[in-house]
Order: sequence, then C-alpha cells, then structure tokens
Amino acid sequence: MATLEDIARALSISKGTVSKALSGAKDVSEETRRAVREKAVELGYSRRSRGAQERRIALFIMNMEYRERADFGYEMVVGFRNAAQFAGFQVELIELDQQTQAAMSYDEYMIAGNYCGGFILGMSLLDGWMKDFETCRTPTVLYDNHIDGNPLVTHVGMDNTEGMALAVAHLRALGHTRIGYLGSAKGSYVYRQRYLAFFSAMEKQGLTADRKLTGSAYHISRCLSRHLPRLLEGGCTAVICSHDMLAHGVMNHCEELGMRVPEDISILGFDDIPLCSYTTPPLSTIRQDRSGLGKSAFYALSGQLNGVHLSTFLLHAELIERASCARVK
Amino acid sequence: MATLEDIARALSISKGTVSKALSGAKDVSEETRRAVREKAVELGYSRRSRGAQERRIALFIMNMEYRERADFGYEMVVGFRNAAQFAGFQVELIELDQQTQAAMSYDEYMIAGNYCGGFILGMSLLDGWMKDFETCRTPTVLYDNHIDGNPLVTHVGMDNTEGMALAVAHLRALGHTRIGYLGSAKGSYVYRQRYLAFFSAMEKQGLTADRKLTGSAYHISRCLSRHLPRLLEGGCTAVICSHDMLAHGVMNHCEELGMRVPEDISILGFDDIPLCSYTTPPLSTIRQDRSGLGKSAFYALSGQLNGVHLSTFLLHAELIERASCARVK
Repeated sequence: MATLEDIARALSISKGTVSKALSGAKDVSEETRRAVREKAVELGYSRRSRGAQERRIALFIMNMEYRERADFGYEMVVGFRNAAQFAGFQVELIELDQQTQAAMSYDEYMIAGNYCGGFILGMSLLDGWMKDFETCRTPTVLYDNHIDGNPLVTHVGMDNTEGMALAVAHLRALGHTRIGYLGSAKGSYVYRQRYLAFFSAMEKQGLTADRKLTGSAYHISRCLSRHLPRLLEGGCTAVICSHDMLAHGVMNHCEELGMRVPEDISILGFDDIPLCSYTTPPLSTIRQDRSGLGKSAFYALSGQLNGVHLSTFLLHAELIERASCARVK
Repeated sequence: MATLEDIARALSISKGTVSKALSGAKDVSEETRRAVREKAVELGYSRRSRGAQERRIALFIMNMEYRERADFGYEMVVGFRNAAQFAGFQVELIELDQQTQAAMSYDEYMIAGNYCGGFILGMSLLDGWMKDFETCRTPTVLYDNHIDGNPLVTHVGMDNTEGMALAVAHLRALGHTRIGYLGSAKGSYVYRQRYLAFFSAMEKQGLTADRKLTGSAYHISRCLSRHLPRLLEGGCTAVICSHDMLAHGVMNHCEELGMRVPEDISILGFDDIPLCSYTTPPLSTIRQDRSGLGKSAFYALSGQLNGVHLSTFLLHAELIERASCARVK
C-alpha cells in the first residue's frame, strides 16, 4: 500500500506538501493538488492506509428522490446513516451529477474528500464512474449495480429472481397463464435483471413467456402508448410491471380504456413504495425492504473496511397481496 | 409470534410444563417433550420470542473436515466462532448425521437445543433437512446452498460465476481455446453452479464450451477413469476442475500418462486449499476466502436476528496464479 512518502518521492516534493494537498489546503495550488491526487490514485494510495482515524463515508445519490418519507430513497438513506453513525462513522450525503463524474475519477474524488468508503444509490449503466468501479481502490457499495472482478466493490440489492418467481407463482395460483411484463429501460442493471427473471420465472411455472407480451421503455407514457396495447390485444389477463409507478400508470390507463382492475385484468408492481396502499385499488407488489437495504449496505461496507471482500449481498423479496390481482375469469 | 402460553393452551397443560419441556427437564416425559416441541413448531414459536438472553448458535457440519489447520472447514469454523463470540454468542459445533435429521425436524431440534440460530456447513441437496429449510422458523445460514422464498434462510458462499469467469479469462489470456471442465457430482448446489458457470464463462470469452469436454462424478477416481480420457482425446490443452483435490488427481494422472504439467496441459483448481502450495507443480486455483466466509456467515445470521432478511451473501473470488498453467504451445 502506497504511503505519503511514496507520493512525495514520485513527484519530488515534500511529504508536507503531499499531506496538505490531500487535505485540500488552500496554500497549495490547484495544479499541485490535482497532481498529488492523480499520483495517489496511480500508486494505489487510499485513505485506509492512514488507519482508523479516517471514518468519513460518502453517500452518493442520483436519479432518486429521498427527502420525504414517501420517497423511494428515504428509508435507504436513513437505514444506512443510522447503522453507520451507530458504528462511529460520519456520513456525508452528496447529490451526484454528470459534471462531477466527468471532472474527476472516483478514486480522486474519494481521496480529495478524505472518504474511507462510498455507498452509491441510483447510478445507471451509462454513468461515467461505472467504468471507474471496475478498478477503484476505495471500498465501495453499489445499490442495484454489479461489478465483476474488483474485490473492493460490493453489490447490494433485492433478490430479483426470487421476487419475480413470487410474482409469477402468485398470478399462476390465481389461474393466470397469459401473463405480460412491462419494464423501464434496460439501461439500468436492475431492470435488465427483472426482465430476464421474468422469462426464467415463467418457465419455472411451466408457462410460456411470449416476447411479444413484454415491452420496455424509459418513460412511463411511452410504455403505456407503445407497449400496453399490444399486451392487451395479445390477451393478457395479468401484467407484471418492473416498478410501482409504472404499475400505477398501467392501472389508470386500463381503467380509462374501460377495463376494471382486478376484475378484467390483474396488475402487479415491484418495490412496494408507500403510494401502493393509496391507489385504487391498492396495488399488490413485490416488496424491497429499503431500510434493511440501507443497513445491509453499511454492513457490507464495514465488511470491506475489515478486509472481507463481499461481492453480492441480496435481501429476500416479499409478496405483498393487496387488491390489484384477482382470480382469472 | 406464539408464546409459551399459546402452546400450553393448545395442549391443555400448564405453562410451567411447557417451559420445562422446552428446556429438556428430566421430570417431564419424553412423550410430553416431543408433543410440546411439535406444537411449538406448528404454532411458529421460536427462541427469538424469548428475547436477547438466548444467545446460543448451533454450527452444524457434515461431509467436511475441519479439525486441522489444513482442512477445508477449519478457517470457516474459526472465522464464524470468533465473530460470534466477539458479539457475545455461544457457538456449539455439532457433527450432523442422517439419523439426527430423520429423527427430528430442524425447527424441533433448534427448539429442543435452545438455539436462536444455525449455521450449516457441507449439506448436500439430498439431506433430510434441506426440505425443512424451505419453511423453517429459525434464522439460518447455509454455506453453499440456496433456498428460495424463506425470508429466514440466507445463502453464504463464493461468487462462482465470477470465479469461473476469472478462470476462463486467465486460460484464454494464455492462448487456450480448447478448455475442458471436470466436476464433482451435481447433487450439490455449488458443483451444479460451477458447472453452469463454466458454459456462461466460455461464452463470455467468445469460446465454444463443448459438452463432450466436460464430465462430472462423485468419486475422483471415477472422474479420472471415465471422463479425463475423453477430454484428452478431444484435444483439451487446459482443464478446469471443480475443486482442488480433483485438480490434484488430474495432475498426477496426466503425469502418469507421460504428459507434463503445465508444458503439455494446464490444470486449474477451485477453492485454494492449503495443499495447493505443496503440489508439484504448485496448483493455480480460484480462491475462496474461508475465514471471510465464516465471518460473513455470522454477519448474515446477526442481520437475520435483527430482522434483516438476507437472501444471498457472496464473497469475491480471487485468481491465485501458481505454476500449473502455462501459455499454450
């Protein structure tokens, strides 16, 4: 593991300057600070080298609401922060944007900010730092993203294979055999997983998953206008949706078309966001334990900081039966 | 959650008798003890109901050596026990046999023994209790076995998909394209996983996995006599083995046939048991961090006891390059 001396020697500057540069002191030029950070990354220096006094964690959040209790990210942030603070860590929440990712590599950012580890919520496969995670030296936990081959990066999420199996088995038990699937764009790891899990779950139940009875689009409105009509014409009696907001849109759209939910069509969502209890009818869904996910993300990061190289940390899925699914007529 | 009162009422006996029966007191007949345990299981009673004073964990071990430092299970047992004892739990190690599994259901055993949770090492898919894990009420961690749909059961193991990807990528980088796979019997979850991972890893590297260049058998000798000749006749320049003992057997057998390892054929194992450093040549392999697995199993069980329902907890695999693989001629 590289030390401050190694960086100083490589750049022919004093150890004091390196130390100042890494802690962002203003009496060191931005040029020097950048050179020090880049050399630090190159040599594999990380805050862990400096021992237990470094207990700052960065919690990055993108593409996800989290401020209100009803927001998807709320309980994850609270669960993570409580577990981390209880263990004596300080958590800094950062709303991450594309510009920041373009300006600095992930490891540079973590060194500049004096963080020993990171937890990243809501990143898409196209985000700039996704590539950095393949080789980064900072212990890092990704919610719903998976990196192969870097021992320091852990994937935390729900068991989507199990969740989809529960969803299809529930509808099958209600007599449905013609089941469709609508999903958000497959540019995100988790939506890709759910899409694939749909086919394996149908097969496991002895049903044929017809590719024509599936569809994916980033915008809910496009999913409704472009794909839903094909599913309905194809004779679907039930539709599984990749997330609750989409399921809510499908319910409304079906009712506008004069179909009753669940009498004419059953709709099932994923995630169990707080909204599900308040829709008409209340939405059956596959629950992610978001508070548990936040806690688990901290356990995983804590394991990483103790040298246990976790790859994957999945929580059980749970079927929540409300009123949007009924026996097929 | 059922209480002692619920059990007493259901059996029309006193709460005192229930309590005595559950703690195995000798002044209660075996018949009553059994009736109480069975009713307790039926009603979903578990030791967790009785609060934090119950901190006994059962560590079951089957089909696995663990007493000596060189044994496969040694570091797992030590890692688990240390983490558990540090957290104030008492760990009891039990060598499990078929008779015990046949005599009593898993939940009954755990109630009778006053355990709040279990960690199970080395169980095969055919073992009697595997069925019990689908519905058990006791927080339980399985090493290298996976149960869908029971929130209280967690699967802990290595990321075999990643491990096989590392193995095939390593051999591909050395110029091998005709790669074979030999495995132990597919009656175990992990050997089934590794077998399937072989095909996906080959595909990922743009190579064709020929089913004829694979073979599985429970006994190493049978694997060598029945399958290895087919791989060699098929022109394999490298063989991946599902576990190091098998890889060691393949190395010896190839040398008896007059082939040199690694000059004529590359051999790669899985697990990194201590033996690997001492074979001739030393064996390249995919490492399981067994001490980390033991610790992780305790983290997972601890999460379960705190109401976080973990499904899957995988550690990163690591390629250990020694001298049994070389560039293809």
